[in-house]
Amino acid sequence: MISYPTKKSTIIKSTINRAKLGMTLEEDLNKTNHYYREFDLAIIHKKPTPIQVVSVSYPKRSRAKITEAYYRSASTTDYNGVCKGVYIDFEAKETNHLTYFSLAKIHPHQIEHLKQVAKHGAIAFLLIRFSSLDTTYIMTIEQLCEFIQTNQRRSIPIEWFKQHALVVPLSLTPPVDYLKVIQPWIDKRSIP
Amino acid sequence: MISYPTKKSTIIKSTINRAKLGMTLEEDLNKTNHYYREFDLAIIHKKPTPIQVVSVSYPKRSRAKITEAYYRSASTTDYNGVCKGVYIDFEAKETNHLTYFSLAKIHPHQIEHLKQVAKHGAIAFLLIRFSSLDTTYIMTIEQLCEFIQTNQRRSIPIEWFKQHALVVPLSLTPPVDYLKVIQPWIDKRSIP
Repeated sequence: MISYPTKKSTIIKSTINRAKLGMTLEEDLNKTNHYYREFDLAIIHKKPTPIQVVSVSYPKRSRAKITEAYYRSASTTDYNGVCKGVYIDFEAKETNHLTYFSLAKIHPHQIEHLKQVAKHGAIAFLLIRFSSLDTTYIMTIEQLCEFIQTNQRRSIPIEWFKQHALVVPLSLTPPVDYLKVIQPWIDKRSIP
Repeated sequence: MISYPTKKSTIIKSTINRAKLGMTLEEDLNKTNHYYREFDLAIIHKKPTPIQVVSVSYPKRSRAKITEAYYRSASTTDYNGVCKGVYIDFEAKETNHLTYFSLAKIHPHQIEHLKQVAKHGAIAFLLIRFSSLDTTYIMTIEQLCEFIQTNQRRSIPIEWFKQHALVVPLSLTPPVDYLKVIQPWIDKRSIP
């Protein structure tokens, strides 16, 4: 089979490369948050995935075995924590598309939650990675609300990100140094 | 059988009463946090229980069914959120004992986590309910650390709570109005 240099093959190739390195956004964020905690820069954790347990058996007295359970949709975001007294809350999403980010990836509950915490003084945002472009952006909840209000479309074009979003610089340790990007906002709000 | 008015029967009776009303501490806190969100007083959620998924089947295309999974021990606390810009973090525990609260109920990871967030300006505490006494106390992480450092015992006597801890006043709506108790601390730290 002859493979032509089409867009599709570019996407697949890039996905394989990242998969080989085992560097999903979630794994990168786990490492990053661990690094922040180690150096006491911020205490931010990923929340566990919400699961509805239906039945549990006890094959050994010591350990309960869940035999039937289902994934539930999240009512909040995946990540939250504190840095210098400021509450931080964000949702992280990855896309393989080259030209847009689909808003269907963000649950309405999550948008509502980010709006609520922002109103209470939180730094609330989306961390969006275009895997095929190896680029990670920060979009604040205020930016997202403005986009939804002023646009009819159900996806955000890459051009919007290039023009308005902040880029998380590439680094090795920590792999997604988002704290560096939001630090000015934290410093402005933090309690001396 | 003749039942004598012993301590044991008191415990059982009280447990049954609470069970009848379906008022576990977790349920009370769910209602309370829902109330706070409804009235925009604070945005505080319970984190999902951490579960290690081992195998998943797909009996229907629409929904994944988890067929083997296990409970994991929590690395952080159960509750966190924000109020007036201040990060709030706590663990809630219930005991049926009348005279003491066993420290074995609090995982060392959780104590470490509360210490870390308190260092970062959080309001960090334990919410402890003596179910049989129908009394709920707030013990700050600073108080817990001091108790551990100055005492050899692996439990905290009720006398300690009576002398040093703050009582969450009984109410119906919301059922555990802990925000009322910690409000002075929030006001002191909150960003104007």
